[in-house]
Amino acid sequence: MAALDAILNDIDTNLENALERLFAFLRIPSISTDPAYAGHCREAAAWLAQDLTALGFETSVEETSLHPVVLAHRPKPGAPHVLFYGHYDVQPVDPLDLWKTSPFEPHITDGAGGKTIVGRGSSDDKGQVMTFVEACRAHIAMSGALPCGVTILIEGAEESGSQGLPEWVAANREKLGCDVVLVCDTTMWDKTTPAITSSLRGLAYFEVKVTCADRDLHSGFFGGAARNPIHVLSKIIADLHDADGRVTIPGFYEGVHERPPEVLEQWRGLGLTAETLLGPIGLKEPAGERGRMPIELVQSRPSCDANGIIGGYTGEGTKTVIASTASAKVSFRLVDDQDPKRLAESFEAFVRARVPADCQVEVITYKGSRAISLPFDMPQLGAAKTALQDEWGVPAVTVGAGGSIPIVGDFKRILGRDTLLIGFGLDDDRIHSPNEKYNLTSFHKGTRSWARILAALGQR
Amino acid sequence: MAALDAILNDIDTNLENALERLFAFLRIPSISTDPAYAGHCREAAAWLAQDLTALGFETSVEETSLHPVVLAHRPKPGAPHVLFYGHYDVQPVDPLDLWKTSPFEPHITDGAGGKTIVGRGSSDDKGQVMTFVEACRAHIAMSGALPCGVTILIEGAEESGSQGLPEWVAANREKLGCDVVLVCDTTMWDKTTPAITSSLRGLAYFEVKVTCADRDLHSGFFGGAARNPIHVLSKIIADLHDADGRVTIPGFYEGVHERPPEVLEQWRGLGLTAETLLGPIGLKEPAGERGRMPIELVQSRPSCDANGIIGGYTGEGTKTVIASTASAKVSFRLVDDQDPKRLAESFEAFVRARVPADCQVEVITYKGSRAISLPFDMPQLGAAKTALQDEWGVPAVTVGAGGSIPIVGDFKRILGRDTLLIGFGLDDDRIHSPNEKYNLTSFHKGTRSWARILAALGQR
Repeated sequence: MAALDAILNDIDTNLENALERLFAFLRIPSISTDPAYAGHCREAAAWLAQDLTALGFETSVEETSLHPVVLAHRPKPGAPHVLFYGHYDVQPVDPLDLWKTSPFEPHITDGAGGKTIVGRGSSDDKGQVMTFVEACRAHIAMSGALPCGVTILIEGAEESGSQGLPEWVAANREKLGCDVVLVCDTTMWDKTTPAITSSLRGLAYFEVKVTCADRDLHSGFFGGAARNPIHVLSKIIADLHDADGRVTIPGFYEGVHERPPEVLEQWRGLGLTAETLLGPIGLKEPAGERGRMPIELVQSRPSCDANGIIGGYTGEGTKTVIASTASAKVSFRLVDDQDPKRLAESFEAFVRARVPADCQVEVITYKGSRAISLPFDMPQLGAAKTALQDEWGVPAVTVGAGGSIPIVGDFKRILGRDTLLIGFGLDDDRIHSPNEKYNLTSFHKGTRSWARILAALGQR
Repeated sequence: MAALDAILNDIDTNLENALERLFAFLRIPSISTDPAYAGHCREAAAWLAQDLTALGFETSVEETSLHPVVLAHRPKPGAPHVLFYGHYDVQPVDPLDLWKTSPFEPHITDGAGGKTIVGRGSSDDKGQVMTFVEACRAHIAMSGALPCGVTILIEGAEESGSQGLPEWVAANREKLGCDVVLVCDTTMWDKTTPAITSSLRGLAYFEVKVTCADRDLHSGFFGGAARNPIHVLSKIIADLHDADGRVTIPGFYEGVHERPPEVLEQWRGLGLTAETLLGPIGLKEPAGERGRMPIELVQSRPSCDANGIIGGYTGEGTKTVIASTASAKVSFRLVDDQDPKRLAESFEAFVRARVPADCQVEVITYKGSRAISLPFDMPQLGAAKTALQDEWGVPAVTVGAGGSIPIVGDFKRILGRDTLLIGFGLDDDRIHSPNEKYNLTSFHKGTRSWARILAALGQR
């Protein structure tokens, strides 16, 4: 076993090669939510499988009901075994005209905040996945082995709600035996402070399609007499929040718990003001529940957002049309014990109560996942914290996260294993937005961090 | 001068040739509102100019600030002179997937309601324009002359609010001298009853674009804290009407007059129920002001409709995004003395009052026109009514129309001339919608009607 210093030094000297590999991965437009890109998802899986095979992993590409998963094993008898999870699929790139460079032509830019890797997936999640792969590569290169047994599971449908993955995990649980799950799909506290994510909000995602007349109408002939589906849909969305920013669906806050005073006190001390959270994105005033700290709003409180809306004429110029249909995508972030299945029922009832008798509405439920909290007494937590502090020079912060990673709940339920969520993304990475980036420091020191964590977990 | 019977007979025997000419006109995709089709607008103007030149009109294609107009003269010294107005531009064709056949491949279908001409512009307004042109052709073919002097003005921007036309009319008023204006861009009362339109609603058309954060956001990170422009816009649209269907903008109903009891009584007698108006389009309940007859709602009351809305992710599947911007097109139908300029001010104030302090809003005013009423004592009205009754066998109905033809107000203001609005469209023609059609009877008997009206006007 080579000394850790030699492994870290190998990561430093091979950074350019690591970036070349990442760029090859980033060039594949593996957008999972759009069927037109299914072939590219398969291509990304094949690329990754080839890379892991070259590292000495026993690798397979396995089918699910949507895009395939990459499964790679490198066991180490007698040592602890970790299961690393990530995803090779990426978000859609629209609006394309807001990208300063082509989303699938990755490159390094050197700006005020230091060097960044720009491209779709650079942060979410290809760049983060490759920090772990590169850490494995350095261990194997320097010592011919990994410090612990490693299984790598990389899926291709995370941005489509991990469609098919829970079923695949349940059917293949014997291939996924481990002591702990590792996930690299979260953020640091800030540019210089690493973080371990201890809770995740859940998600419920719906589409609402309202149909009024059976055809588009001329507003001159019918305006004032015919029902307008854009009006119906706007009323539904407007009704979802009251004047204090609370969600109005009956029973929505059932299962939501208040944080104890000492937690709120600790959060107050972190100094995450509306200005620090919203200033960088051009906003000033928190929009959610009145009287809550911004950190509460995004971590411990549920929320509701219309993620998209379309209806009628949306081209250039004017058209005096009353549309036949209008539709919106509406999703909820859930906390604590909120039940996405109950919400699906109460949301649909809320919508139907607002649709006039002679109009139709279709409510599609895309996916739902409960919120997740990780145990503070995980045996691997201390080792990971020490490794992160060794790399970054400051203690790792333990925080809640606003987003959801539903599969973490499935790992607990199906495999009985907890997950260490350690990521090196930053809040300004513009994931899901144009001009997504990943700081070069995140990639480089993220790789070094995993090399340290693997070494630490192997010593247990 | 040939006998009218010979002229009508010529129309009957040449119907196939007339349809071939109309189809050639319909094949040109002259969508005025989309800059990508500007060349096709010019092509439509050139096609029409060539046809009118062949008929012996002195014809020119003249530039405006948007698409050119076709101007054609065939004077007759000592006889009355009419100015015929129409438009060669058509509405956009989206949603294209709802067309059963390609919108610019016109053809005849034979259904339960008789033979129809199917294609974009078949009714609005190319088919209607050609009824007048074909009537002129028959007169010229049979007698070598027209019964009265005729100027034909066909514009190419009617579906874009006649942009540039009022200025062109004002600058060219000496070319437009006439005793009366004729317009064929309206409907019959029903399939068997001709109609002369005596009033038109006005129009005010706006676009509202709300911008919140300066980029698209991940709803997991920011949901609950960041303002969502789809919510802001939905609230604005929802607030535009109260629970009784009345528009809530302060001062909106100023200048709206109640119809006298005897007019309401006459309307009641026409039997236009919610069922007869809305049943054919798949609706049952009137959506507008509570307690008004459907005929009031679409003819004598103002209305407000969101004509389009778009924001966030609208592709397949899901994306957990909070959009940076969302926009909607909102228009109003105006009656009586409502002032579109005052409405533009009060609408913008209404919108701005509903946009949070740290968000931006842009309100674009596309166009505005006042409502129009025609004098019942027009000398040409009786001649036209008699001609229509001779052709259709039943008296022509005098009605108000829900849509606006703003240029009619400009003809009155600039030329000092009133307009006879006589059209052969039907309420189920699906103008501005997929599968637009024009009944073959409308085209054939519409042409015969104009032949009769021209003869009648020439005898005055």
